[in-house]
Amino acid sequence: MPIELLYGINTAEEILKAGRRRVLRLVISRAEKAPRVQELAGLARRKGVTVEFCDARTLEKLAQGASHQGVIIETEPPVKLNLDQALDNEPDLKKTVWAGLDGITDPMNLGAIIRSAACLGVSTVVIPERRSAGLTPTAQKAAAGAVERVNVVEVVNLNLTIERLKEKGFWVYGMDMGGKPLPQVEFTLPAFILIGSEGEGLHQKTREHCDELVSIPQKGGVESLNASNAAAVVFYELSKKI
Amino acid sequence: MPIELLYGINTAEEILKAGRRRVLRLVISRAEKAPRVQELAGLARRKGVTVEFCDARTLEKLAQGASHQGVIIETEPPVKLNLDQALDNEPDLKKTVWAGLDGITDPMNLGAIIRSAACLGVSTVVIPERRSAGLTPTAQKAAAGAVERVNVVEVVNLNLTIERLKEKGFWVYGMDMGGKPLPQVEFTLPAFILIGSEGEGLHQKTREHCDELVSIPQKGGVESLNASNAAAVVFYELSKKI
Repeated sequence: MPIELLYGINTAEEILKAGRRRVLRLVISRAEKAPRVQELAGLARRKGVTVEFCDARTLEKLAQGASHQGVIIETEPPVKLNLDQALDNEPDLKKTVWAGLDGITDPMNLGAIIRSAACLGVSTVVIPERRSAGLTPTAQKAAAGAVERVNVVEVVNLNLTIERLKEKGFWVYGMDMGGKPLPQVEFTLPAFILIGSEGEGLHQKTREHCDELVSIPQKGGVESLNASNAAAVVFYELSKKI
Repeated sequence: MPIELLYGINTAEEILKAGRRRVLRLVISRAEKAPRVQELAGLARRKGVTVEFCDARTLEKLAQGASHQGVIIETEPPVKLNLDQALDNEPDLKKTVWAGLDGITDPMNLGAIIRSAACLGVSTVVIPERRSAGLTPTAQKAAAGAVERVNVVEVVNLNLTIERLKEKGFWVYGMDMGGKPLPQVEFTLPAFILIGSEGEGLHQKTREHCDELVSIPQKGGVESLNASNAAAVVFYELSKKI
């Protein structure tokens, strides 16, 4: 079983609370006196997880320069579902929003998008296996624990996935600079919203598979919102429907 | 005069196009054959800026590990306006949205917020001099050149600034988890929207100065959107009014 070291209070707390993946141990710096860290140790013990205290230098070494807040959690990689499992998990498709990422290669952006998904009611994020950022520790850190609350589905072929979701009744929307202005779009659920990379946007093939293209109206300048900010804005509009 | 080295094609292009600050030289790696880099060299020459070509290793050294895309621009620090200058710059206060940051200490978040401001029509971003991220090269990089298109005002005291803007007719809104849900808020312009840090939110004093507190409705979990994503969402709602 591959093992991951993840850092920070929020991340450790979310993993322990969610209980979705096996945790080997929680390591805490003895120098860390913050009440939240003490509570975290209590939570871990209640969950049957070994808590180890070590001196600040040992922890610093384990963290290899990462920002750790005196806390490291040693755990299995995050749970990934396949498409059918994620579909089976939906209690009500009429209240379901999923997102698909098409060419997001920056793990910080991936993490931020998963975090926004969790906050704004997007239950599942679909990522292609290739040419995309994966759920690395950096992405998980940027997600601030939200990886535990959003289903992440890795797929081989995004376009086949789109076809599959259409069969299940999903409406497929794609973020595209030339699309219909977001405030004018009447979303129908279940919805699958596709987000491309900042530079390139959606791939041509992905675009062709969309029922409707959607743009965020931008004032002046040619530059666009960064991918995670664009995702947050469209998730927000969709969250009004949930 | 303090000098800054900034990296990347977008950043260099925006600085040259905006022409707001003096540029000492543009340095380009000889190994860089991308057409956009060649266009950039042409743009610099038309603006009367010295273009120097150097070998890839020299450029790598100058960049000190930063992601540079073969391009370094040597320039004055970004233009900062004072409050009166920024107010004088507004052609129509009835179409004016400003943002104020209260305790945003991460330069990546500051940069991302400035970028969203530029895209969504927020003309000025007010940052306190102390206990806040400043316009470092990291922040400018995250802003992807938007620092050239948004007025940045550094103030000593955010609360005095709020009072001053109220006298000028601004309505002051604060992002706060306990505030009125964003979709129900009827914004009145000119608006000054205050954004706090992720962990702490707005300072108590800042909160007291607001005409209305605004929240982004979040689904499940206690975690909140990251500060730059929250800013993008509220800027988007405000942009509908501009």
